[in-house]
Amino acid sequence: MEPARPLDALNKARDKRIIVELKNNKQYIGKLKSFDIHINVVIEDVEERVNGEVTRKLNTIFIRGDTITVISTE
Amino acid sequence: MEPARPLDALNKARDKRIIVELKNNKQYIGKLKSFDIHINVVIEDVEERVNGEVTRKLNTIFIRGDTITVISTE
Amino acid sequence: MEPARPLDALNKARDKRIIVELKNNKQYIGKLKSFDIHINVVIEDVEERVNGEVTRKLNTIFIRGDTITVISTE
Amino acid sequence: MEPARPLDALNKARDKRIIVELKNNKQYIGKLKSFDIHINVVIEDVEERVNGEVTRKLNTIFIRGDTITVISTE
Amino acid sequence: MEPARPLDALNKARDKRIIVELKNNKQYIGKLKSFDIHINVVIEDVEERVNGEVTRKLNTIFIRGDTITVISTE
Amino acid sequence: MEPARPLDALNKARDKRIIVELKNNKQYIGKLKSFDIHINVVIEDVEERVNGEVTRKLNTIFIRGDTITVISTE
Amino acid sequence: MEPARPLDALNKARDKRIIVELKNNKQYIGKLKSFDIHINVVIEDVEERVNGEVTRKLNTIFIRGDTITVISTE
Repeated sequence: MEPARPLDALNKARDKRIIVELKNNKQYIGKLKSFDIHINVVIEDVEERVNGEVTRKLNTIFIRGDTITVISTE
Repeated sequence: MEPARPLDALNKARDKRIIVELKNNKQYIGKLKSFDIHINVVIEDVEERVNGEVTRKLNTIFIRGDTITVISTE
Repeated sequence: MEPARPLDALNKARDKRIIVELKNNKQYIGKLKSFDIHINVVIEDVEERVNGEVTRKLNTIFIRGDTITVISTE
Repeated sequence: MEPARPLDALNKARDKRIIVELKNNKQYIGKLKSFDIHINVVIEDVEERVNGEVTRKLNTIFIRGDTITVISTE
Repeated sequence: MEPARPLDALNKARDKRIIVELKNNKQYIGKLKSFDIHINVVIEDVEERVNGEVTRKLNTIFIRGDTITVISTE
Repeated sequence: MEPARPLDALNKARDKRIIVELKNNKQYIGKLKSFDIHINVVIEDVEERVNGEVTRKLNTIFIRGDTITVISTE
Repeated sequence: MEPARPLDALNKARDKRIIVELKNNKQYIGKLKSFDIHINVVIEDVEERVNGEVTRKLNTIFIRGDTITVISTE
């Protein structure tokens, strides 16, 4: 049996709500629609949060992978 | 059926108005004309905004992918 | 006999608790589930710590490799 | 018909005056002579501007792509 | 005879104590167990030092290559 | 006829005096001896300038490409 | 005759004393023993200098290429 890979964890999170944290300290919380090997990520029904405050609501957002630090499930 | 990929979301946004946010905190709002795998992006009928204020109007702008943090639809 | 490689050390740490330190000075302590050659890492039962204080508890977290400085075992 | 690509927009700007903006907030305004896939750019009859003030005039300048944020037409 | 290469110097330091210095100004002093072409490094019996002060003792640490500035022998 | 490429402009500057500007705001002015596709550059009879003041004179200097912002002819 | 390349200049400096300058403003002065295409460099009989002051003496040091700005001969 092959050992698990990090992208498997993202694959299991498809259509679930995730928290994406950026190098600029913004957080985007939404439903994971897609990702690729660069960790580019698309999420839907999004809340942008800065220091815990909701700053914007967005339908769909594309997040460039190299700006991401961590991704967690809600 | 193949799972969705992040670039599909950009493809659906062609000719629609998008908001491109940069690492230097500038925003460019305009109509998406083209993009590539590096997430280099060309938009038209552009407003540049800094801290929510419109700072410039531009016909066409080329945005280098590695300077982008997130892209959303208006 | 081939000389040891750095990823061997991560392989031995699978299912053990590790401390992952980020360029933004956050620490994530949890059980190592998977990693890849980019040093993307997934850990479970996670504590986030900033300046030694626990700031969040998370079930599962994906950490992007290029944001990591060092990984140690507890 | 193939969809447009971002470099097509640069190609159309050949021999036209463009504004190149850098991560260090300098602007270089000049006539686009050449570019490549790294977005390395050569422009001629150049004005360097910092905060809107002309700081230098240059015949020809080579700008390294990874230092560029956006390129627009005048 | 082929000229020497930088990785030869790391190879000679295997099982010897080395000082690894990071972009964040932390130093890790320990016995070199393994390295790869990315200069990812694993050391054992480690002291972490900040401004010359010992801040932690660690059994084994994995250091991501792109965070390293210089490596010297003790 | 093939369109011009940015490296053509550097090629024409061989053995001419150029000004190389770095991300750390230092300038190196000297005669261009060689360059490669990474824009690594070697210049001779060099003046280092910081804020317009000459800070050092050097015979030959190797400048790593990824630290360069722009190159112009004197 | 092929045009000169930047690495030729480093090759000529083998076994000569060079000054390596880093993005963090440290200088390492020592005898060049080896380098590679990433500009990883090993020097011997090394002085570390910060703001012109000698801060350490080292036998051998490995310097990661991506942390280097310029290399000059003494």
